[in-house]
Parts: sequence; structure tokens; C-alpha cells
Amino acid sequence: MTLIDPPSILAPKGFTGQGVFCDVKQLGTGKGSNKGKKRDLAIIYSERPCVAAGMFTTNQVCAAPVKVCLQHLEHDSAQAIVVNSGNANACTGERGLKDAQAMCEQTAKALGLLRSQILVASTGRIGLPLPMGKIKSGIIDAAGQLTALQSGADHVAEAIMTSDTHPKQFAVAVELGGKTVRIGAAAKGAGMIHPGMSPSGQRPLSMPLHATMLGFVTTDACIDKLTLQQCLTQSVASSFNRITVDGDMSTNDTVLALANGSAGNPLLSISSKSSSMRQDLRHFQEALDHVCLELAKMLVRDGEGVSRFATVFLEGARNDLDADLALRSVCNSALVKTSWLGGDPNWGRILDALGYSHATIDPMRVDIAYSASKSSRKVHSLRAGKPSKVTFKTLCELVAGPEIFLHINLNLGKGRGVMYASDLTEDYVTFNKGDVSDPASLGG
Amino acid sequence: MTLIDPPSILAPKGFTGQGVFCDVKQLGTGKGSNKGKKRDLAIIYSERPCVAAGMFTTNQVCAAPVKVCLQHLEHDSAQAIVVNSGNANACTGERGLKDAQAMCEQTAKALGLLRSQILVASTGRIGLPLPMGKIKSGIIDAAGQLTALQSGADHVAEAIMTSDTHPKQFAVAVELGGKTVRIGAAAKGAGMIHPGMSPSGQRPLSMPLHATMLGFVTTDACIDKLTLQQCLTQSVASSFNRITVDGDMSTNDTVLALANGSAGNPLLSISSKSSSMRQDLRHFQEALDHVCLELAKMLVRDGEGVSRFATVFLEGARNDLDADLALRSVCNSALVKTSWLGGDPNWGRILDALGYSHATIDPMRVDIAYSASKSSRKVHSLRAGKPSKVTFKTLCELVAGPEIFLHINLNLGKGRGVMYASDLTEDYVTFNKGDVSDPASLGG
Repeated sequence: MTLIDPPSILAPKGFTGQGVFCDVKQLGTGKGSNKGKKRDLAIIYSERPCVAAGMFTTNQVCAAPVKVCLQHLEHDSAQAIVVNSGNANACTGERGLKDAQAMCEQTAKALGLLRSQILVASTGRIGLPLPMGKIKSGIIDAAGQLTALQSGADHVAEAIMTSDTHPKQFAVAVELGGKTVRIGAAAKGAGMIHPGMSPSGQRPLSMPLHATMLGFVTTDACIDKLTLQQCLTQSVASSFNRITVDGDMSTNDTVLALANGSAGNPLLSISSKSSSMRQDLRHFQEALDHVCLELAKMLVRDGEGVSRFATVFLEGARNDLDADLALRSVCNSALVKTSWLGGDPNWGRILDALGYSHATIDPMRVDIAYSASKSSRKVHSLRAGKPSKVTFKTLCELVAGPEIFLHINLNLGKGRGVMYASDLTEDYVTFNKGDVSDPASLGG
Repeated sequence: MTLIDPPSILAPKGFTGQGVFCDVKQLGTGKGSNKGKKRDLAIIYSERPCVAAGMFTTNQVCAAPVKVCLQHLEHDSAQAIVVNSGNANACTGERGLKDAQAMCEQTAKALGLLRSQILVASTGRIGLPLPMGKIKSGIIDAAGQLTALQSGADHVAEAIMTSDTHPKQFAVAVELGGKTVRIGAAAKGAGMIHPGMSPSGQRPLSMPLHATMLGFVTTDACIDKLTLQQCLTQSVASSFNRITVDGDMSTNDTVLALANGSAGNPLLSISSKSSSMRQDLRHFQEALDHVCLELAKMLVRDGEGVSRFATVFLEGARNDLDADLALRSVCNSALVKTSWLGGDPNWGRILDALGYSHATIDPMRVDIAYSASKSSRKVHSLRAGKPSKVTFKTLCELVAGPEIFLHINLNLGKGRGVMYASDLTEDYVTFNKGDVSDPASLGG
């Protein structure tokens, strides 16, 4: 696997795209200022029909574009994605559903495709109808300027941003069966970040609860639809579904993948028994895992107000579900998150959050440790429930940097997991309280 | 029922108390400054043996004093409570348990009682051993100055405070069987406030998850132990267990009640069939409910950094458990809480939090309304999932004050509930990040 630099969602062969400004927030134009003119509508297009896969919020309040994607994914072929930021088209009832369908219709028309070949996503404020006039002109504008150049990819990545401070793309190449297969992706996050996505938008009973994040993956791999869905499900489970900024799961979380087969590799299929094919599939999965995980971490680092990034490893839970419950309790605790902000190695708050989680723990068995990096030596603050002799100063030094590595062992079983989380800062609060005298400042 | 003013935990006949400074935090004394000399150890004493009842954190990491209380409550008689602030005696292992027992032993010795007649509570930083020398001198000091005067009650209420900005007491009198029965109480809260207490400290399976709050109730009612426990369980369920500041459930949450019978009313007992007795019991329950609810609300209003207080009513859930799950999801959402801070009537975030809760909802049935007071006319922002025609300005006016009244109807069934919650402020974050260069500033 090699990194493609600069990263581009349009790195795979046969993909073009564009992002434009069409004033989704209706702030008015021509005021002479460029403020508020961030691009807000993007199209990602494949020259050839693709197989497509998706992962969607399990929030019971799911936005209209999610519902439309679920319908369109039932068809065999997809060829473009249309996305807007600035308005989530969520909680917009029947009109919202018609608007999401109209976005697909207009995109299909502009590109000479069928409506069912278009996937759609929206992010922004909840509860407002889409300004369909603006959206339509944006679609026509974007469709007329599709390009495979870096500028097109960068415009796509900008157009999907909301409170993100910078665009996020990642791309890799991997050799499969003698052919170079590329995977490109772009994502946005910032707030309402605690995704729990499933392929159907239905919540598995065992799935714990967990924002809007959008992720778009392109690949020129030759892969069948079922295999692409399975690979995406697995990659999202270990990346986007393992992050939290504020514990609020969005109505719009969506990851979409398009594979157009232009690389000409031997068809990747989970039903294949050949060992070379299984190895190829493993390499593709690893590459997709890597792309999704790098983007997922970027979302946390660029989360609203975030100053510190924590990787929390947990092992020794009764089972993996317990590990997940324990991790989410720790990573969403306001007191743990503010201690991270303060650089306070407060194991008491961690143990407290473990104790009120739905995971089974035995306080007298819990180990809590920090390390300076992912793989460096662990320094225990708590071992079998007892504070270690390590000085407070030593522990403080381990949590003083922008990256915190926390290791928890419940010592009860073989369940394990990892989460990527942020601190909770004054800036997060200030940003999200907004300013009601300036409704345009109000977030999702 | 009449209010006793000024409120006093020592209002019931036969109770005395005192709070002293014994330097639990070991900040040193004699520096000439009064800073850090807040009273930090209290004794509440009944001249006559009492029946006692308790409600305790369901956190699996439960502090040593909680364990000791559970043991001592198995005995028929209790006569005093000893409490310290500044150190939670939580996660302190075998030593912590011995220390909590020693606190009881020393208090018993100072008062001429048996160790098992003493109940004990602690609040403050987790994971540090209690400074038993200081504690012992505090116990001797407090026991030597017991008084029924207002000053004693006020000193008790001060001594149990941690980050609380002011002491909290409440007291009422009620006529039962021709006799005046008094109930007094003191409580502390501030942070790590999301109690979920049960009589055994065991979590009922149906109990959703939810800081340190301590509450102490005294009464001169003549009541049997089982009845007192049942009344306390019911009152806590509708008061302290219905509040949240930050969603973090403490290792130390404790409410203790002592009843000494000095009022001379006919014995209150759930086993009594007489209608006058059942009426008396109902009146006692109402009075206890009122005392606990008023104190619970005071805890939220004085929560760390809190600027706005929200009462959230939810009805129409499939059942009461669903109502509770939905309420806790809304009341603990960082985005809902920051919108309250901003005075932003953001129903989208509320609907989002309902959607990711474990409660069943149908977005197209949800009503969301605000009112200017508990009983004034509801103004709907959302009706059956559709935004109402009410202007944003009108809604903003309804959430602009220090008290917010939010009404949610899921329109699915008969489940209902209420929660008392706070906004999330920059001050909360600043306070809880602490200052690692000044370990004494670090909270629980």
C-alpha cells in the first residue's frame, strides 16, 4: 500500500468531481465580501457505472437523503453522488423527501443518468427546507465543471465542510493481481460526532449508541456489490463508528463508496475461494481500513473546539460489547473530557465512568495506564484497582501533549476495543451556544 | 404542610449537629488566610435512637463509606451521621474501608454510641487516602460542639459542600395525628451530578444510567424502618434521581434519612390498614417528596457553571422506561445543553437526541413545545414532526430566561416523566479542566 500525495478523492481512474458555491444558507451574494462563499455543493461522478455501498446513521430520526440513498442502493448501478452542506434536509417531512429526490433527478438530468443512479447527502442545520432554486443552479454549475484535476477534488472536499476548519482527503494505491487499484476519499465532521452507522440504517440490538459526519469513498477496484458493502461495513466499524467528539449521533451520518472497476484487477468477491483472490481481498480491506481510519481520526482532530486527541485502548472486558460500552462511557464523560483538556491524569474520573457504564467491571481488577505513544511503554496509574507509586508529575507529563494514549484493562475476559476521542473545551461550548441574534451562526 | 424558615436540617425535635474545619484537603493551616478553611467535617446527631434509611449510588465503583452504610443499615438503630468533604474515600481499597469504619468508630466513641449506630459519607477527590489524623480531630471537635441552634445546622450544610457556591437546606412541618412532625434536610451537589440511586446500591435491570450528591434528611416522625425506606426510595426516585448536571454518576451518591420519633405522632407504617394512618402516611410522603425535590432542584441550579435551569416534561412514550431513556438522552446531550446556554430554541437537536436514545420514537409524531412557566400555555415549535408557524423570535423569548420549560410528547403511549437539567457552559469546562500545577484545584 502506498500513499497518494497530494491526497485526492478523484485519485482512482475514471472519477471526476467539482464543488461550487450556490448559497445553500441563503446569506445573499454580491455583498462584496467572500465571507459565507465557501463552496457548498459537490458532485462526484464516475465515467463508468459503479457498484455502490453505504453506511447510514442508526438515529431513528434519519434525514431525507439517507432514506433516498437506501432506496437507490437497491439498484445495481450508481454513477454519481450529489452533496450539499449548510442544510441537513433533516426533519423536513414529505417535502424533504421530495427535495432529496429532486436533487437526484436534477443531477441525473445534468449528467445524462437515471435518477436511481444518483446517491445524495446533506449536512447542516436541521429542520429547514432546502432552497431548491439555489441547489438546482449549483447542480448545473458543478456538473458543467467536472474535472479529474486536484482542484476538482479539493473543491469537493471544501463543499462538504460545515464547521470543519479544513478539508479532509486521503488516498492510497495497492497492487492487486498485477494491477494498481486506487482508493480515494473525502470526509467532513466537526460536531454532532458520535457515529453509529449500519448498512440499513437499522440499529442492531447489540449496537451501543453513539454525530453529522459524511464520508465518500471512490475506488477503481473491480469488486462486486456485496463484497464492497461487506468491506465498507467492516472498515466503518473500525473507523468512523469508533470516534466521538460530543456523543451526539447525527440524523445524517453517511458513508458512501463507489467502485467503477477501471483498474482492471481480477474481480474481488467474498464468494471466491482462490487463495490469491482472498489475499487480494485482504489487501483491499486493509487499504480501505487505512483510508477510513485516517479520515476518521482527522474528523476528531478537527472536531469543534478540540485541543487534544485521545486514543483509548480497552482490553479484558467480558466481551467486545462490554468493551464498547465501557469505552463509550469513558470517551463521552464530560468530566473525563475536561480532565484531558486540563492535562489532568485523573484516573478517578475514568474509573467512575467505567463504573456507571453498562459494562460489567470489578473495580479491584482495573488497570489504567498511559503511554507517550501508541507503542511505547505503558506507565500505570492504577493497577488492580490500586494507585501506583508513579508520581503525579510523571503522569502529568504523559498527558501534557496534543495526543493522549490511555490503556484500560478490566482483567475480566477477552473483550477489547479502541476509541478515538477528543477533549471538551470552552471553545466547543462557545461555538455551539451560537448567537440567536445571528441565526446564520447557529449550527446543526 | 408549612415551610420552616430559616430552613434547618436540625429543625426536627431532638437533633443536634455541628460542622468544623479539620483540613481534610491538607492545605496547611495558620497561613493567615481563611481561604481553604471552609468547614469540611460534620456530625448530625439524634438524642434518641433512630430508624434509618438510605439510597446509594448504583455505580459499580462505589466508595468505602457507601459500603459501610449498607452494613450499618442492617442494624435496627442509628443515631448519628458523620460526613467529610474534600476527599471521597473512593477507590481507596482495603485501607479506605478501614478508614470509613474508623470514622464511625471515632464518632461512636465521641458520642457514647456503638459503631454500627453511625452512618458515614464522604465527598471530594477520588483515589486519595483519608488523612485520618485530621479527620479524628475534626470528629472530636464537632462532637464537642453539637447544638440544635441554626448555627449548627448552617455549619453542617457548609461542611458537606465541595464546589457548591452556597449551602442548601430545606425544612417543612406537617400535622400528623394532631402532632407536628418536622422534616429537615441538607444536600450538596455541583458536579458529577446524574444520580441513579437504589436502596441496596444494586442497579435494577430496568434502571437507566445516570454525580457526587449527598443528601441528609432528619425527621422527628414516629415511623418504622421499612416504611421510612419505602418513603425515601419513592421521594428520591422523583427528585435526586431525576436531575442531571453533567451526566456523570458519582461513586459516592448517598441520601440518608434518620427518624427519631420525638414528634410523638401515631406510628407511620405501610402495614397499617387504618384510613387515617394511610392519610398520615400520604401526607408524610408528600412532605418528604417536597423536601427532596426542592433540594434536588437547588443542586441543579447551583451545578458547576450552570446558568440556566431546564424542566423537561415528556409524555406519550411507549412506557415510563422509554420516557426515562428519552429524557436522559435529551438532558445529557452536549448540543442540547449548549443550545440552552445560547437561548437557542433548537428543536432539531432535541429531536436528534430523541432519535439516538434507546427509546422508541416516531419522528412524524413528535411534538415539542415551550412554556413561559410550568403551567402557562405551551407554544409548539414542532407538532407531529412538522415545524410550527411560530416565529423564531417568539421561541427565543421563551428560552431567554434563567428557567426553561420544555414539553415533549412522543404520542406513542402512556409513558411519562420529568427531568431537571442544566445548560453546559464555558465555566463548567474551565472549572473541571482544573489546574494541574495546583493539585488542590482539581475536583472529584
